[in-house]
Amino acid sequence: MRLRNKPWAKDKLKQYPQYVILSPQDYKGKWTEAFEKDLPLHIEIGTGKGRFITEMARKNPKINYLGIELQESVLVSALDRLIEAELPNVKLLNVNAANLKEYFAKGDVERIYLNFSDPWPKKRHEKRRLTYKSFLDLYKDILVDEGEIHFKTDNQGLFEYSLVSFSEYGLLLKDISLDLHKSNFEGNVMTEYEQKFSEKGNRIYRCEVKFQ
Amino acid sequence: MRLRNKPWAKDKLKQYPQYVILSPQDYKGKWTEAFEKDLPLHIEIGTGKGRFITEMARKNPKINYLGIELQESVLVSALDRLIEAELPNVKLLNVNAANLKEYFAKGDVERIYLNFSDPWPKKRHEKRRLTYKSFLDLYKDILVDEGEIHFKTDNQGLFEYSLVSFSEYGLLLKDISLDLHKSNFEGNVMTEYEQKFSEKGNRIYRCEVKFQ
Ligand SMILES: C[S@@+](CC[C@H](N)C(=O)[O-])C[C@H]1O[C@@H](n2cnc3c(N)ncnc32)[C@H](O)[C@@H]1O
Ligand SMILES: C[S@@+](CC[C@H](N)C(=O)[O-])C[C@H]1O[C@@H](n2cnc3c(N)ncnc32)[C@H](O)[C@@H]1O
Repeated sequence: MRLRNKPWAKDKLKQYPQYVILSPQDYKGKWTEAFEKDLPLHIEIGTGKGRFITEMARKNPKINYLGIELQESVLVSALDRLIEAELPNVKLLNVNAANLKEYFAKGDVERIYLNFSDPWPKKRHEKRRLTYKSFLDLYKDILVDEGEIHFKTDNQGLFEYSLVSFSEYGLLLKDISLDLHKSNFEGNVMTEYEQKFSEKGNRIYRCEVKFQ
Repeated sequence: MRLRNKPWAKDKLKQYPQYVILSPQDYKGKWTEAFEKDLPLHIEIGTGKGRFITEMARKNPKINYLGIELQESVLVSALDRLIEAELPNVKLLNVNAANLKEYFAKGDVERIYLNFSDPWPKKRHEKRRLTYKSFLDLYKDILVDEGEIHFKTDNQGLFEYSLVSFSEYGLLLKDISLDLHKSNFEGNVMTEYEQKFSEKGNRIYRCEVKFQ
């Protein structure tokens, strides 16, 4: 994601504690307390400008959503969407996914969305890919048993890599689409990157995997 | 594969016992006796006109190859290739893969190739797909421990289905390419269907999976 210098972003995030959770460690093991209703929690890692998480929250009022994003300068756009949408079941978290275990206990999360994660194509950057095994360890440690990862990307190399990584980890492949926008998958909610890259003619790859 | 009526095909196959094995049950548990040298055995199921298996045998003299094909009318073309090629390490079998266990004992086969298998796109024909679980059972029963299946196809639906079927069966995905002809996979040997469909602009999908 292109970085724009927004020195005011951090401050703005702090001004909306009803949307941006400032002390996530306080909710570890009791995330339903962060929301109005006691509902299953789905998180998106690398939520960007928040199009996906906001639309998902609107379409699925029986799920609580949390969008996790490292960069304040991007997350402020997601915040603007939430302010506009006024939904009770979606919040944001400005943290690094590498530290997930500080904020979530085993079983806190029912599903993880990874959408258009940074591909890190160089072999020497493999460990940074959000589908590298050390990240799968983290996901396992915060998901319910049989929790799921739903992953989509237009990056062929990252998708191939991730399928192998999932398999090596013993994850079960539940569903796969090698051309999502021409598939019969229903109710797809596009992300910002998805919109941009599918307009360029790129295929979108998608899969669902389950811990077992 | 388009069927041409070739009433003489069956007879011709019988005239070349050095290339077409007529009593495969005799070699069950001792396939090296069917070849000149005691080498690992790789089989291709649905070998068609034999381009792949013949080229593989030429390129890999340290492997014995067996091409299995149901239709005599197609297999005679493979036979013509073998007569021409005069290779000691490749033979043909005119049998139905559904009966593999009549001809092979556990551990006889080290690797199975499935190339452009019939897609059987209708859900009610799922059991006919060569990557359906009952076929995976058969493959497991004739392969060595950690034996592999190498699969390629241009059919997106069959490839998606097969990846899920492999995963449900507990097979390990070792390698995958979602666009083989643009990948850095080296030494690819094209099949007849591969040539035809890649010329039409179709992508070729490929994967390697391993029993564990
Ligand atoms: C390529 S963008 C995709 C954004 C959005 N998901 C979409 O599809 O439009 C990837 C995002 O992931 C974020 N990101 C990368 N690594 C992260 C991490 N370890 N923790 C949280 N966010 C991360 C980046 O800051 C970036 O905004
Ligand atoms: C679509 S063709 C592909 C031929 C060749 N592999 C290629 O890539 O050019 C599939 C072949 O598999 C054969 N076949 C299908 N089911 C089979 C079975 N159960 N046992 C043996 N051969 C089979 C068909 O007769 C046909 O020749």
